[in-house]
Amino acid sequence: MRGPMRQEDQQMRGRKEQEEVNRIRALCMDARNNGQSIVVVQGLGFVGAVNAAVVATSGRTEQPPFFVIGVDLPNSPMLARIVAINSGINPFKTTDPEVMRIFDEAVNVRKNLSATWILEAYEEADIVLVDINLDVTKHEVGNAEKFSVAMEAFRHAVATLGERIKPDCLIMVETTVPPGTVESVVKPTIQASFENRGFDSTEFPPLVAHAYERVMPGSDYVKSIRSMWRTYSGVSDTAKLRARKFLEAITETDKFPLTCLGRPSASELAKVLENSYRAVNIALIHEWTLLAEAMGVNLWEVVESIRVRKGTHDNMMSPGFGVGGYCLTKDSLLAQWSSQELFANASNLAFALHAINVNDLMPIHTCELLYRGVGSDLAGKKVTILGASYRKDVDDTRNTPSLVAYEWFVEHGAEVAVHDPLATEFVDRPDVRIEKDIEAALRKASGIVLAVDHAEYREASIDSLSAHVEPNAIFVDANNILTDDRIRLLKRSGFQVSGVGKGHISDL
Amino acid sequence: MRGPMRQEDQQMRGRKEQEEVNRIRALCMDARNNGQSIVVVQGLGFVGAVNAAVVATSGRTEQPPFFVIGVDLPNSPMLARIVAINSGINPFKTTDPEVMRIFDEAVNVRKNLSATWILEAYEEADIVLVDINLDVTKHEVGNAEKFSVAMEAFRHAVATLGERIKPDCLIMVETTVPPGTVESVVKPTIQASFENRGFDSTEFPPLVAHAYERVMPGSDYVKSIRSMWRTYSGVSDTAKLRARKFLEAITETDKFPLTCLGRPSASELAKVLENSYRAVNIALIHEWTLLAEAMGVNLWEVVESIRVRKGTHDNMMSPGFGVGGYCLTKDSLLAQWSSQELFANASNLAFALHAINVNDLMPIHTCELLYRGVGSDLAGKKVTILGASYRKDVDDTRNTPSLVAYEWFVEHGAEVAVHDPLATEFVDRPDVRIEKDIEAALRKASGIVLAVDHAEYREASIDSLSAHVEPNAIFVDANNILTDDRIRLLKRSGFQVSGVGKGHISDL
Repeated sequence: MRGPMRQEDQQMRGRKEQEEVNRIRALCMDARNNGQSIVVVQGLGFVGAVNAAVVATSGRTEQPPFFVIGVDLPNSPMLARIVAINSGINPFKTTDPEVMRIFDEAVNVRKNLSATWILEAYEEADIVLVDINLDVTKHEVGNAEKFSVAMEAFRHAVATLGERIKPDCLIMVETTVPPGTVESVVKPTIQASFENRGFDSTEFPPLVAHAYERVMPGSDYVKSIRSMWRTYSGVSDTAKLRARKFLEAITETDKFPLTCLGRPSASELAKVLENSYRAVNIALIHEWTLLAEAMGVNLWEVVESIRVRKGTHDNMMSPGFGVGGYCLTKDSLLAQWSSQELFANASNLAFALHAINVNDLMPIHTCELLYRGVGSDLAGKKVTILGASYRKDVDDTRNTPSLVAYEWFVEHGAEVAVHDPLATEFVDRPDVRIEKDIEAALRKASGIVLAVDHAEYREASIDSLSAHVEPNAIFVDANNILTDDRIRLLKRSGFQVSGVGKGHISDL
Repeated sequence: MRGPMRQEDQQMRGRKEQEEVNRIRALCMDARNNGQSIVVVQGLGFVGAVNAAVVATSGRTEQPPFFVIGVDLPNSPMLARIVAINSGINPFKTTDPEVMRIFDEAVNVRKNLSATWILEAYEEADIVLVDINLDVTKHEVGNAEKFSVAMEAFRHAVATLGERIKPDCLIMVETTVPPGTVESVVKPTIQASFENRGFDSTEFPPLVAHAYERVMPGSDYVKSIRSMWRTYSGVSDTAKLRARKFLEAITETDKFPLTCLGRPSASELAKVLENSYRAVNIALIHEWTLLAEAMGVNLWEVVESIRVRKGTHDNMMSPGFGVGGYCLTKDSLLAQWSSQELFANASNLAFALHAINVNDLMPIHTCELLYRGVGSDLAGKKVTILGASYRKDVDDTRNTPSLVAYEWFVEHGAEVAVHDPLATEFVDRPDVRIEKDIEAALRKASGIVLAVDHAEYREASIDSLSAHVEPNAIFVDANNILTDDRIRLLKRSGFQVSGVGKGHISDL
């Protein structure tokens, strides 16, 4: 039964909040007495949480330069994360043991990391790192032109900072945003809040910087923050200088020098261009994959032969199953949004939009190779997808093409089993079971997709892959997992084999 | 007065031809007695002529492994080339002194290179290198979908070989062709000729290989043949082996290992994909250039900041003036032709086609930056284009964007001067004068395009660039030739400055 909150509950909540405010203030006072700067991380998602631990564990253990407070909303999943962090536990699954270690070190050894839901934390900050999501929604698969960007939610979160922070606090935006956001949205929003609070904007110009992260899931998660080039800029020379000092303190700038760009818009643009570049080059190869298959050509060896030209051609992408993760599937849309909403349609980013469409539909090609192999009839047949994550040797399933294939096969009447050695669930479809027993997953399959290039699949014997499947099953290798020798073995045993970009298989 | 050839003329011609046949046969007989293989190069264009000299000067001077005959048609430009080569002179302009040296060495020292127009040369060949052009015509700028490929002319040239060569002669196609040409066109054409000549195709299967070149104009022309990775394949194991042996003899395979692909179609595909990759990545950046300019961002520094990610992002292209040369402007169309004509529309290469359109129109953007700077009125005003070649520090003007800009400015009523320190003419418009005196070219200009990144322009003083132009002239830097300091100097002197991808100029 829902109803108005009882008075005792309200009092209870007020008391709890006040206790938390007192706790944070006391921690910050101690930190200041120890000569530490207060860094508040806004948003404890994938990037923010680990980033908080990285900042806390930078510098010397005996004298940590920062005290770090992670802040997120007081809803139940976030409160669970907050509790985990305050217990010294990383709230996300990861295959990088260093993540667990740094949470433990920060909370239990250095005692300079705490998480909370109270907004008063921002009042203590010398630096706020903005690591909240800026959501992009594609309304139709294969039609990236129809999208929306949740800029109002982002602006609202930023306004919270303007209402609380000290006027000399540096706001460093790490979120991937539409280029122009810091100058057109963040700075004016903060400035308006400052003026409301009576701070004169010439005396207290907002200090806002943008410095994007290049975090990669997998076993080098922490390294991808600390040992990585960072690009940044700020709305003023002071903001740039403060940003540089902070980044020097948390990254290995001797090996990975910083780059300061002219203005925050440039840094924001760099991030989305960087990812659009990858997305376009993946999609480009997919168009040539379809041609190579028709020609009987092994495009994998073609690409490898071109990549010998280091510096000019070695970024060429390989054929594949599809694109997942959080960045490559959407970042281009942020730039398209900027062009449309902030810069009077200065450019239509046609390559980037076409890339999103090609990449979103890419897994269907693998499905169709399999479909043809089973006589274009999947009713009552079992299909096994080997691999659920969006990259090899990680457990990350955000926007994974495996789920697209799963849904396609189900729609076409198949019984579908999904196996993954690392991933335990599809974040977007927790109801779909991910099988851990590869033998059970493969049993009686008429079609098998080798979707993800996990070491387990690459190293599996042909016998273990084929012992329990149907006699005339088709194996579809979407990621160049099977060598030519292994393909010959499968074919000699009466199986069909097909592969993305592997037009040469019929000649083996 | 034209009329039927008089009998004496016919006799004279017959006599001259017979003399030439005798000359070539005698040369070949001597060469064989010296243990040399006979290499005949079909087509003495840009690639074929230099390639002939490279093959002739491979191996040890005292004992050259090859005797090389270059063959082209008996029309007057080709006969001029033939005469030049036989005098030990490179028939093309080039900035690479090594080109001149190897022609001299081959003809005058080694005496193992001769050029001719007679088809009997093919009868002598152990290897024929096919270096004839396969022409691609775009019928409409900005609409690459409308194109044609002169496959019949190519097939005809190949048929000439089939009628003449010894059945164990290796045909190595170096021409960039629609992927599938060797297997679908060359091999069947040769086989049909062989059968006409009574050679049984099981006993004498045609030996055809494809090995594409990566020749670059400029001061490393010869190096770009000898010291370069080569990719090849052949229609049979014998063809592959023969191709490998030949390539090992002419390239530095210890430093630049060869790659053998599964079939000639793969090698053909590699060539056009390699160039399409570049073309797409150039065009991709142009779309972001327009956005960066509207945002006030310097895209050059943004690209540089991303390129620090070696191996994954360092192939990213810079903004620029446009794309010229022979390959990037058309190679993608060969693949599209294959898809349409040979492989049942297996794929529409949308990225590659869009890239050609974007790149073909790219120079217009620079024109428009200048146009805006002169108040959208060019009537009676002088525009100076600095740079006529399609690449820096070369004299090559094939498909140069400078000519596109020249024609645009003329169409818009301007008087146009073009300067280039190296190029002496537009190959496609020999009527357009290329000024050699930069001061004369700049005199009284209201708009100046810094089009090509030649060293002369990069090193020119601001004074020398601006002393003779109109007081309020606009400089448009299409190739990041002006540093920020030089731009400030120009602006301080009252000039306008604008630049491709240089949105930051207004803040300088």
